[in-house]
Amino acid sequence: MALTKKPVTGMRDILPEEMEIRDYVIGVIKETYRSFGFHSIETPCVENIENLTSKQGGDNEKLIFKILKRGEKLNLETAKEENDLVDGGLRYDLTVPLVRYFSNNENTLPAPFKALQVGNVWRADRPQKGRYRQFMQCDIDILGEATNLAEIELILATSTTLGKLGFEDFRININDRRILKAMASYSGFPEESYDSVFITLDKMDKIGVAGVEAELLENGFTKESVDKYLALFKGIESAENGLDYMIDTLGSFLEESVSNSLKEIIESVQATKSAKFDLVFDPTLVRGMSYYTGTIFEIAMPQLGIACGGGGRYDKMVGKFTGKDVPACGFSIGFERIILLLMENGYQIPERKEKVAFLLEKGLSGEVLCKVIGEAQKLRSENKQVLIVHMNKNKKFQKEQLTAQGYGEIREFYKEALKQ
Amino acid sequence: MALTKKPVTGMRDILPEEMEIRDYVIGVIKETYRSFGFHSIETPCVENIENLTSKQGGDNEKLIFKILKRGEKLNLETAKEENDLVDGGLRYDLTVPLVRYFSNNENTLPAPFKALQVGNVWRADRPQKGRYRQFMQCDIDILGEATNLAEIELILATSTTLGKLGFEDFRININDRRILKAMASYSGFPEESYDSVFITLDKMDKIGVAGVEAELLENGFTKESVDKYLALFKGIESAENGLDYMIDTLGSFLEESVSNSLKEIIESVQATKSAKFDLVFDPTLVRGMSYYTGTIFEIAMPQLGIACGGGGRYDKMVGKFTGKDVPACGFSIGFERIILLLMENGYQIPERKEKVAFLLEKGLSGEVLCKVIGEAQKLRSENKQVLIVHMNKNKKFQKEQLTAQGYGEIREFYKEALKQ
Repeated sequence: MALTKKPVTGMRDILPEEMEIRDYVIGVIKETYRSFGFHSIETPCVENIENLTSKQGGDNEKLIFKILKRGEKLNLETAKEENDLVDGGLRYDLTVPLVRYFSNNENTLPAPFKALQVGNVWRADRPQKGRYRQFMQCDIDILGEATNLAEIELILATSTTLGKLGFEDFRININDRRILKAMASYSGFPEESYDSVFITLDKMDKIGVAGVEAELLENGFTKESVDKYLALFKGIESAENGLDYMIDTLGSFLEESVSNSLKEIIESVQATKSAKFDLVFDPTLVRGMSYYTGTIFEIAMPQLGIACGGGGRYDKMVGKFTGKDVPACGFSIGFERIILLLMENGYQIPERKEKVAFLLEKGLSGEVLCKVIGEAQKLRSENKQVLIVHMNKNKKFQKEQLTAQGYGEIREFYKEALKQ
Repeated sequence: MALTKKPVTGMRDILPEEMEIRDYVIGVIKETYRSFGFHSIETPCVENIENLTSKQGGDNEKLIFKILKRGEKLNLETAKEENDLVDGGLRYDLTVPLVRYFSNNENTLPAPFKALQVGNVWRADRPQKGRYRQFMQCDIDILGEATNLAEIELILATSTTLGKLGFEDFRININDRRILKAMASYSGFPEESYDSVFITLDKMDKIGVAGVEAELLENGFTKESVDKYLALFKGIESAENGLDYMIDTLGSFLEESVSNSLKEIIESVQATKSAKFDLVFDPTLVRGMSYYTGTIFEIAMPQLGIACGGGGRYDKMVGKFTGKDVPACGFSIGFERIILLLMENGYQIPERKEKVAFLLEKGLSGEVLCKVIGEAQKLRSENKQVLIVHMNKNKKFQKEQLTAQGYGEIREFYKEALKQ
């Protein structure tokens, strides 16, 4: 039987040029996050199916690649539904596995625990341009830190990483679920409809204020509430004064500790950041996942219409595993989008090794071959990259190709010349 | 519903101490292999089920984690057997995916193509100590190189990597499928029984010569053939003279090109190697996979009873995808065993970053917090690792723990002291 050359639908082979950049970026990410005291960890790519379908994953739970039971546990005849056939699934994010990991290993981990994860996740999404069913995520999370030191360090670490990769003039938008709630409460929306209001608000960048207004009215909210709500956004004169305006307007609807903490995050990061970016309060920022309980943030790149990473505080998830809540906050870099941006801009990795190619005449062997390989070994020990290949018939073309691959020096070795 | 804290059966969470070593080892592996001109590549962890069950994977094909079809493609009512339910599976090795990758991308890849893969593979093996259902493999392969330059470079690259990780006095055993066949032919075994003879020979290190003799006789081979076969092994006086003895004894049963090539591999590697190890002809080396067509080799560590990596030539596998054979040779490092050995020996990563811990009094905030974080940012930009944490009630214990984690300097920051 002929075998299939193509990768499975929606997944892809990564070619050497891209892998070189990916390997380099992962190196920068790991090194930078380590300098902030994060610990690299790893969880299995396969998770228990119950953990993946526990309502922590939102819509991602509809996109799970499920794994068939094996051996005697698989019974086709008695299976009535899909879930009778499976016992595991590929993880769709790194957050649910992290929380399970923390619950499983809490006693041996430092407190607070600063985790760094770089790994693939899988979602059976409809395949589309630039969106694959296997993709890499890079997450940092701090578990056990209740103060805004967590947010400050997460934002500094992530922005420092992006700065080292040459990104500048980007923005990190920040908001707080509790501010979102205060705004909804201030406007008089009924509490049980907050989520519905946020879903509409989340579309602000796509449908604009008028669109949000229309959708809220269509969903049956009163004109009075909708007007009051939208006035909150319209009243902001500039990004800088946004938070102060919101605090003044919301008054007692917003707890002082929440607004003080958010102000402190923004001020501390602006004062100590090492990358060129702005941290900006954005009252329209919602972020989809229902597990967030406090601050939420998102990276906006000027070149991209979509977010390039994000995160927030999720203080209630560890309790789902252990019965005891642990404060938690995380930031995920949009790794695949970062790579796409770097590739599109013709990114060059700094400090490449010097590359030397050895071209051997066909049939060169024995002692002569030993000599040539010995010479290559010497250069490699001097931290150079040495490729040994046989000469092609079209040597000129071969040398052009090697030059294009970055081989700055090409040496030729012949059977006779060396024997002397 | 309470969630499951444990990882899925047979897989494991990797703790920070081990991850630090794993990340470092992967770095050394990638850097060393790159210095030999290998290109990092990646394939999806999920492969088409047909490719995984095409008889290239031997017994591993019985251990596949299979992935359930999704949406309309999944039909429980009409499904008669397991394979009606699945369309993909987790890869059980990196060789089958590499060959598919090469077939899919051949036109855009350099020739010969030197591939480096570091990635997880999955096998639903019976869980046992030190053996997990998800584990990492590190493979290098050269496709399109018919001469023994492939073997020489693969063995040099892998041994150099092991040397850089501090391993010495190990051995790489080498043999050739064609020598195994010549030995069987010389002894008069019928050609259709060669595989059965090799399966018995493969047990030599466990059951000894007497055990091999008994099993061959039990399997119905003639006493004459068995005696002649075993005399081949008994006749070897030392590892050094083994190959010459075998060549002399087998005479015309063994092609001269095969023995010359093997001699050249051993001589070239011994003359140019950078690590302390021996490359030794081992006529009892079989290696299980049926896809090998020429040389085979295996790493033997003095501390381990089992192989710590291996590989060989498989010139007939690309043809299964493309219809046209391409010479291919690969070497896989036993990554998990290497990590286990390093962990057991208390391996210390060289050149760690200087680690500094900042202990903050609870409640330290505002301008003071900015100052402290600014100081940390400065140290981080000087390539130091800085952890900022709040002081615990038991500060003495906390400092002891930080010291144990490698923080050589611990600074304390108080609300008042800083305000001056």
